[in-house]
Amino acid sequence: MRIGFIGLGVMGRPMAGHLIAAGHELALSRVKPVSAHLVEAGGKAATTPAEAEKGADAVILMLPDTPDVEAVLTGPDGVIGALKPGAIVIDMSSIDPVATRRFADGVAEAGALWVDAPVSGGQAGAGNAALSIMCGGTDAAFAAALPLLELMGKRITHVGGNGAGRTAKVCNQIIVGLTIEAVAEAMLLAGAMDVDRAKVREALLGGFADSTILKVHGERMIDEAFDPGFRINLHRKDMTLATEAARSLGLALPNAANVQQLMNAAIGRGDGDLDHSALIRTLAAMSSA
Amino acid sequence: MRIGFIGLGVMGRPMAGHLIAAGHELALSRVKPVSAHLVEAGGKAATTPAEAEKGADAVILMLPDTPDVEAVLTGPDGVIGALKPGAIVIDMSSIDPVATRRFADGVAEAGALWVDAPVSGGQAGAGNAALSIMCGGTDAAFAAALPLLELMGKRITHVGGNGAGRTAKVCNQIIVGLTIEAVAEAMLLAGAMDVDRAKVREALLGGFADSTILKVHGERMIDEAFDPGFRINLHRKDMTLATEAARSLGLALPNAANVQQLMNAAIGRGDGDLDHSALIRTLAAMSSA
Repeated sequence: MRIGFIGLGVMGRPMAGHLIAAGHELALSRVKPVSAHLVEAGGKAATTPAEAEKGADAVILMLPDTPDVEAVLTGPDGVIGALKPGAIVIDMSSIDPVATRRFADGVAEAGALWVDAPVSGGQAGAGNAALSIMCGGTDAAFAAALPLLELMGKRITHVGGNGAGRTAKVCNQIIVGLTIEAVAEAMLLAGAMDVDRAKVREALLGGFADSTILKVHGERMIDEAFDPGFRINLHRKDMTLATEAARSLGLALPNAANVQQLMNAAIGRGDGDLDHSALIRTLAAMSSA
Repeated sequence: MRIGFIGLGVMGRPMAGHLIAAGHELALSRVKPVSAHLVEAGGKAATTPAEAEKGADAVILMLPDTPDVEAVLTGPDGVIGALKPGAIVIDMSSIDPVATRRFADGVAEAGALWVDAPVSGGQAGAGNAALSIMCGGTDAAFAAALPLLELMGKRITHVGGNGAGRTAKVCNQIIVGLTIEAVAEAMLLAGAMDVDRAKVREALLGGFADSTILKVHGERMIDEAFDPGFRINLHRKDMTLATEAARSLGLALPNAANVQQLMNAAIGRGDGDLDHSALIRTLAAMSSA
């Protein structure tokens, strides 16, 4: 299949690599020295997004933020202006779910299919094609995208219509961020009471407080092992998506807003490149605990 | 063993019943019609806490709140004034961990042993002797209490010194309350985006957002199945313990404080006797979502 791939960052590079390895003909936008190996592997360098997707059956986006996707889709030399009728746009970026619906409408008006398909699983999941992928789009669009998604991920869920994949991803990041903060508050209290945090974690596992976060990030907090993992800088972006969606939709998400503020402070104190479990450092600094 | 049992509420009644069934000689404080069956089963009614524990080898407390425990221990006809030297006080109430240390010191000065041993598992766990019990106290006190605790619970953890069991319980309730709120915010966002909440929950299970709360309470929110379970009224008490401990210790627990406020509002709108997963109703009402 002819595929335009736009967004060759730390996630996009291995993902594009899997597609090339499977025999697809990739046109790559914005090739830099760090992604030159993809051209050696058989990818073709393109100069603009529109050139990357000229004649493509599928266009895959893996871009940092909402304005990047907007620029690539609707900007000068943008994707929407040059879509082949019946092509599919698979936007795997983690961006605003409300804006996503607007982008999906634009693609539909151009006669093409749309799937929003943000991922979780990080660099490791991208590297060994084991990403979780949450999808939004019509049944026809999902069916068209699935064979390509299966080359990059393992748990692939069709959540609902346009924007549903993006919504699920934001829901995921709200729950992960707020659960990390909850475990951090508990660990902070245990520490201030001079109670062994590891014993508290052990006592709580298996009960209603049990979670992947208590297991994994609780242990990171106890060991002060804050090498990422998933950086606070990146999670702050997701909390911003949550609070922006809340603003667009007229919703109050009070603890998501609180955690966004704590992440702002964490970044301010220089912890942005640490794992998100390091949020406990910001709470501890507030109380000198 | 001669045991004084003080606190024959919905939890204390079945717990005392297990001890009587195992052949212990129980003196029961404040027997009412609802607990008369325990006297028929062999328990002895006492008129005051001090009478209940006269000559007792162990005194077990299962009381609603910190002032209740304080009154029973140090009030007129209180337990501390009449403790047999070498006896053990096992306080299974869920109360303030900071005050707990003060109570433990008073008991030690009277020449007796102390274990704080709050439970989780609710009425069902109390009924079939399957409570989780988190213990604080010396090794000697824990060893002395263990044979009795094993008649009432299954997962029994010695978390640390005096107050450590209570601290672990408050940590548990912080994590449970805040994770419920996190799942509620995510479900609220999914609903506002017209995305199927059940599909979102399904897409998130197995990833980093996975938790017992997402499984159990997430499903309750989707089904609007809010029969308790664990009542918001009771959980609000625990969040108050968390924020009071934070005040005593000079700590900021911002999301625990937020969830306490949301529970205040939930009780204000008449949801206090619903399961704590009904917190989503308060968030939804705020946004008319």
